[in-house]
Amino acid sequence: MSWINESGPARDVVLTSRIRIARNIAAVPFPSIMQPHHAAEVAEKVKKSLYNKKAEAGSTFAFMYIRDVPAVERQILVEKHLASQDLMESYETSALLLDSKEKIAVMINEEDHIRMQCILPGFQLNQAWEKLNRVDDMIEADLEYAFHEQLGYLTCCPTNVGTGMRSSVMMHLPALTVNKQMNAILHTISKIGLTARGIYGEGSEAAGSIYQISNQITLGPSEEELINNLTITCRQIIEKERIARKALHKTTGIQFDDAVWRAYGVLRNARTLDIKEFMAYISQLRLGVSMGLIPGFSLEDVDSLMTAGQPAGVMKKTGQIIQGRDIDEARATVIRDAVDELLESRKNRKEG
Amino acid sequence: MSWINESGPARDVVLTSRIRIARNIAAVPFPSIMQPHHAAEVAEKVKKSLYNKKAEAGSTFAFMYIRDVPAVERQILVEKHLASQDLMESYETSALLLDSKEKIAVMINEEDHIRMQCILPGFQLNQAWEKLNRVDDMIEADLEYAFHEQLGYLTCCPTNVGTGMRSSVMMHLPALTVNKQMNAILHTISKIGLTARGIYGEGSEAAGSIYQISNQITLGPSEEELINNLTITCRQIIEKERIARKALHKTTGIQFDDAVWRAYGVLRNARTLDIKEFMAYISQLRLGVSMGLIPGFSLEDVDSLMTAGQPAGVMKKTGQIIQGRDIDEARATVIRDAVDELLESRKNRKEG
Repeated sequence: MSWINESGPARDVVLTSRIRIARNIAAVPFPSIMQPHHAAEVAEKVKKSLYNKKAEAGSTFAFMYIRDVPAVERQILVEKHLASQDLMESYETSALLLDSKEKIAVMINEEDHIRMQCILPGFQLNQAWEKLNRVDDMIEADLEYAFHEQLGYLTCCPTNVGTGMRSSVMMHLPALTVNKQMNAILHTISKIGLTARGIYGEGSEAAGSIYQISNQITLGPSEEELINNLTITCRQIIEKERIARKALHKTTGIQFDDAVWRAYGVLRNARTLDIKEFMAYISQLRLGVSMGLIPGFSLEDVDSLMTAGQPAGVMKKTGQIIQGRDIDEARATVIRDAVDELLESRKNRKEG
Repeated sequence: MSWINESGPARDVVLTSRIRIARNIAAVPFPSIMQPHHAAEVAEKVKKSLYNKKAEAGSTFAFMYIRDVPAVERQILVEKHLASQDLMESYETSALLLDSKEKIAVMINEEDHIRMQCILPGFQLNQAWEKLNRVDDMIEADLEYAFHEQLGYLTCCPTNVGTGMRSSVMMHLPALTVNKQMNAILHTISKIGLTARGIYGEGSEAAGSIYQISNQITLGPSEEELINNLTITCRQIIEKERIARKALHKTTGIQFDDAVWRAYGVLRNARTLDIKEFMAYISQLRLGVSMGLIPGFSLEDVDSLMTAGQPAGVMKKTGQIIQGRDIDEARATVIRDAVDELLESRKNRKEG
């Protein structure tokens, strides 16, 4: 993802901000009950509205039928959060519009006719909403959405009716995880219409201490109110995390630096790395970089490593679907090469 | 120790070969019962035989009274196995002659009047014996040793009577440790008049899988027979260890390389390193280097790191006696700097 190298506000804590909206076309049955010719009609109509058009400065929309996308590429799209597993499973009728900067993705014939999202680096929900709104307008200029005066946008699943919007913030919360404040935070969040889940890994512990916090409800408040609610809460969490990082560094002293540098040492030298361990070391490294402990290494550098080490990132390099020990070995190689490349480019920047 | 950068036979398994002999001067009471003026007489006489004389090509003997040696330096001498703790405790009367390459050390007024040793890199007991023999002859040319026709050299403690010789080989046996053959080997050794002990650390597990194997008996066989006996046994252990290393590498595959590289990564990046962990990583690294896994890194490089990371090595750099967390932090710094230096000199060699 090219945005991964862009910095963003509060990048020390926030990896990405994401807005997703669901839309359906009036007078065409919902995907769950539509015929193949309906699907083809939806795909062609949405394509016509966006294909080759400008998403933002320097970026235009590409179009692909999922049936034409190779298996590895499909998995990569899913892992990059640019498309859902559901879209892949409906590959006979589904399609995707993707802007060349991979900030905006428009899924066609998933659960709804249209599911579009904007994902931006750092903490910028409002900017994501603005961009997505513009794309929404481009489509609406050509097509009539299924809309109800009282309910708002109609969606296949009732939980999305209304704004049809889900806004989410992906946060790196290692210090709040270590000092055990996360459970209380997750509990509070659930009481104000928000939800949080680990974004990588299974089970209760979020791999790499990365959490996605998003709005649970879509009906009632306006889009702006929903985004505002999420923004206020995330801003508080960001501050809590920053305070916790400083406190952690102060109380653990050299042990803190040691853990960060060892994580760096392992990532730079390991010959096999499973995903769980990889995420733990990346999290440790990211924490250290956010505190300025690794000179010349930026948060963008760490985040690009994190993406490169995910299964899809690794398979993109190897060019084939692998798993188990094979992918662990390939991951170690991919990460070593990526770190070497970063160090090399840093050296060249210095000399240049 | 300047010999540490010399390579030696079977250096992949053997760190050093050491011969030590005990001698007493006839007509002077043993140290345990002698008067201060006897001690002064012994020190002056032995000094006269060796001081400023040639130990080998390019190396002469220096002389020091232990009472004149600063505390840190005393500890360094002990940890380098160039002097004993006993010599330090008898500092009022004890002295040391040391050749400038630190291969030959002659302790004066320790348990016996004279305890001299030769320590060489790698597996070369016979060469060590030759060198020591020459020094022994230099002293005997001036002084009369306490010698008994039947018993041989007389020593303070009866266990040293006879040849007064202890020969020992310091071996790195990580693969035999991992595959659990060490216990059987230690058991066998004890039955043929040899003894083995971990050279670093306390307890049953030898820190860094480093063992010192030496002759238990001194009376009966000649020096040559004792050395020959030890040589034959060590040669077998060397072969066993080499076979075990290959087997271990074959069965564990990438995990083997991974462990070696991670050890390297931690040593190069840690901010605090306790001695136990340090020895474990050094052992792992040494094993890898012996298999050619870390290009450009030699066994001599690893052994110089091992010495640099011992308490005395660290304190030599910091210039003061430290312990606990302070020495762990200092150790990490010393090792990082030493690795950087090695990489730098390797780079210069390449470019030069």
